Amino acid sequence: MSKKLTKRSEDYSKWYNELVVKAGLAENSGIRGMMVIKPYGYAIWEKMQAQLDKMFKETGHQNAYFPLLIPKSYFSKEAKHVDGFAKEAAVVTHYRLRATADGKSVEVDPTAKLEEELIIRPTSETIIWDTYKRWIQSYRDLPLLVNQWANVMRWEMRTRLFLRTAEFLWQEGHTAHATRQEAVAEAEQMLHVYGDFAENFMAMPVIKGVKSETERFAGAEDTYTIEALMQDGKALQSGTSHFLGQNFAKAFDVKFLSKEGKLEYVWATSWGVSTRLMGALIMTHSDDHGLVLPPKLAPIQVVIIPIYRKEEQLKAITAKVDTIVNQLKAKGISVKYDDSDNYKPGWKFNEYELKGVPVRLAVGPRDLENGTVEVARRDTLTKEIVPMAGLDVYIENLLNQIQENLFEKARSYRDTHITKVDDFEEFKAVLDQKGGFVSAHWDGTPETEEKIKDLTKATIRCIPLDNPLEEGKDMLTGKPSKQRVLFAKSY
Amino acid sequence: MSKKLTKRSEDYSKWYNELVVKAGLAENSGIRGMMVIKPYGYAIWEKMQAQLDKMFKETGHQNAYFPLLIPKSYFSKEAKHVDGFAKEAAVVTHYRLRATADGKSVEVDPTAKLEEELIIRPTSETIIWDTYKRWIQSYRDLPLLVNQWANVMRWEMRTRLFLRTAEFLWQEGHTAHATRQEAVAEAEQMLHVYGDFAENFMAMPVIKGVKSETERFAGAEDTYTIEALMQDGKALQSGTSHFLGQNFAKAFDVKFLSKEGKLEYVWATSWGVSTRLMGALIMTHSDDHGLVLPPKLAPIQVVIIPIYRKEEQLKAITAKVDTIVNQLKAKGISVKYDDSDNYKPGWKFNEYELKGVPVRLAVGPRDLENGTVEVARRDTLTKEIVPMAGLDVYIENLLNQIQENLFEKARSYRDTHITKVDDFEEFKAVLDQKGGFVSAHWDGTPETEEKIKDLTKATIRCIPLDNPLEEGKDMLTGKPSKQRVLFAKSY
Repeated sequence: MSKKLTKRSEDYSKWYNELVVKAGLAENSGIRGMMVIKPYGYAIWEKMQAQLDKMFKETGHQNAYFPLLIPKSYFSKEAKHVDGFAKEAAVVTHYRLRATADGKSVEVDPTAKLEEELIIRPTSETIIWDTYKRWIQSYRDLPLLVNQWANVMRWEMRTRLFLRTAEFLWQEGHTAHATRQEAVAEAEQMLHVYGDFAENFMAMPVIKGVKSETERFAGAEDTYTIEALMQDGKALQSGTSHFLGQNFAKAFDVKFLSKEGKLEYVWATSWGVSTRLMGALIMTHSDDHGLVLPPKLAPIQVVIIPIYRKEEQLKAITAKVDTIVNQLKAKGISVKYDDSDNYKPGWKFNEYELKGVPVRLAVGPRDLENGTVEVARRDTLTKEIVPMAGLDVYIENLLNQIQENLFEKARSYRDTHITKVDDFEEFKAVLDQKGGFVSAHWDGTPETEEKIKDLTKATIRCIPLDNPLEEGKDMLTGKPSKQRVLFAKSY
Repeated sequence: MSKKLTKRSEDYSKWYNELVVKAGLAENSGIRGMMVIKPYGYAIWEKMQAQLDKMFKETGHQNAYFPLLIPKSYFSKEAKHVDGFAKEAAVVTHYRLRATADGKSVEVDPTAKLEEELIIRPTSETIIWDTYKRWIQSYRDLPLLVNQWANVMRWEMRTRLFLRTAEFLWQEGHTAHATRQEAVAEAEQMLHVYGDFAENFMAMPVIKGVKSETERFAGAEDTYTIEALMQDGKALQSGTSHFLGQNFAKAFDVKFLSKEGKLEYVWATSWGVSTRLMGALIMTHSDDHGLVLPPKLAPIQVVIIPIYRKEEQLKAITAKVDTIVNQLKAKGISVKYDDSDNYKPGWKFNEYELKGVPVRLAVGPRDLENGTVEVARRDTLTKEIVPMAGLDVYIENLLNQIQENLFEKARSYRDTHITKVDDFEEFKAVLDQKGGFVSAHWDGTPETEEKIKDLTKATIRCIPLDNPLEEGKDMLTGKPSKQRVLFAKSY
């Protein structure tokens, strides 16, 4: 398979798909809409998981695990939730197979039909609130701060690796509180945790905001979101945190005895990010040479490649490299010395470039003589000759610089792609030609939102949290508006 | 809910179920055979996962993720595998629900029927070897050392929390090799990793051995197992590692070009442990007071409880305890200071005893005066007054002692419950009265094995790896035998 990627400028979507496969991140399985996450892709996801899990625990959450299969009837208990989640779902109807008459294969045993069909969880509010009914009696049981790492299934018709797959991996936090205020604070806190993770670890700038009613999670009173901007000018919803009010407590009859001795319904939140973040990470930083990874999420931060002709040269290089490896490891830097003789240095250079390893060191006989190393940065594709003395400190600083540089580059792109617009023709022109977020007045009605979506494919990505109030007129209907909102075409 | 447990001597099975629920480890969900793993139980599982994952990575394995749903036809490709795994399975037949005519609930949409039914994975050999066909072309692609952490589903008729549930969590390693020898070495290596984990982390002695043909994994040429003994004298298969020969490579047509330029079928292994280990851990060490945890897997290793009447006493105690907490944390010991005023000390003592926290410290005003602490061990239920000076070192040693003591206690129980028997009447008597492993001669035929199972419910747990050869006669048939094997009743 050729390692050359289609250029982003030629076909962004094709570039993305090729990159995901060729960099060893994921591939389509033989089963419609379901992907295989390959070892290198999974290693990145593990780094994301580890960091997020740490942040969840630091904010007082514990992990637990709830059943994969949810009885069909659970979905009908929350009126909006059923419309949002019980439609395109994988349905288990039988629990046994039997040999076919010819003995050559298996078929569904019609006598093993479930009394009630089970749905593979598309999200777990219903099964979790069914459980919380048993766990919550008194204010002493609150708050209940639980997270689950799990696979979920939504029968998507058009799928793309990481961005939209029938099965995906995610975490879903589900918390229960004694007061509205506390639940809202929790939903906001988790939004900030997501924002912090996106910006400081993924080096991906995000806009924090609230969704319009139309774009809200089915069953939520408010949905908070972090929205990122991809290099093709499309927005990507990267994480959501929902204030669920008392909707699920009422649907599953979960009440608690308050300090004052009253029986009250419990307040709820839920929040999640998924393997979709892998798509966001890839599309935020990568280039026509392949993946570009922020050092904080790179499974391999530094790769070292020996350049030699004779076996004795390799020995001398390896002796020196061993010292470098130990120094870097002592600083907590993950480093790989690739001395395999299966491939030539040029092949290896391309391979690690494709895989987005942030820093590449090359060491040859001349470097040994001069006490130097060639240091190549993946983000800028620049090279430098650097003295071996003090190399560990140099690399440590360089990794920090790369992390910052990636964030700044992405932020600068994002910032120059937020366009204020007051006229609908201009709105359409900006969406088509420049892309990115468009900040425009909206009259606040779902009808207008729908009309704009029909005419342009753009949706309201969010109403930013720190949005200034500003008198204006809806660009389409001319009706009065109190603030601008952010529109964009999106994934 | 009363915290008092049924005694083991009264009803071992009831004791187990009560302990699992009351200690906050797991509970039955509303869905048949599926459990909810509660936060405290999940925290123990996470410690197991972290340690196992570390050991897998140290032996060169990488994690990946494969689809949850497997097309029915994949199972028919390996003749034995289909019998073992494609029977009691959850079958997805539809991918959409629709509103019922009255609009009040949802029903399966008959037009959304899958062309081919999908099975929720009971184990992933088939989907993984379908994938490996794309990944393996040449000897350069081998060995392929992959592990997956995942949920799996087997439609068990009789379920018990952790020990046998329809859905369970596990890891499954799937490796591909160029030679038989290398694959056998891998299967054996992973058996030793499991044994090491069981003995050094779970403090659970295990016998390593090979399964008889009857008890082999469906599709394996050899199944290696670690077998533990529970306090009721029943054996528990705790982990298995399979040498799969070329069976799956042939079923999925996975060949590689060898160094010599020949096309050959790939050799395979698979190996797994599951949340069943939670059941093994509980039943190996716990007592009538509740859970007993080996320190290495305890989410909380030390709990500190203040004993006070007045608020100012609590303040003075807390000031001292803060120092202790910091000293213990500096040694990597996980410690919880429970100064909540919701419950009295006596309630807390019982609670942490039930939850198996290895060491409990109590600090009262008199301790402050004397510069002492009361230290209670969960394993022996003994108490001691210990000087605060040097407490961190004392606790560190104590945790090691507890870890060792639990292992020695379990080993001594296990060793006194391996009984050599040469007569079938004695065999039955030992099984019924003493329990444990019975070491007896067997003529090597599946027929005799089956007969013994029918007559006694005992099965061959394994042929130990280091089994000495010894001439003898099968205790039932009198036919010649070359070695003793281990029988037991089992979970």
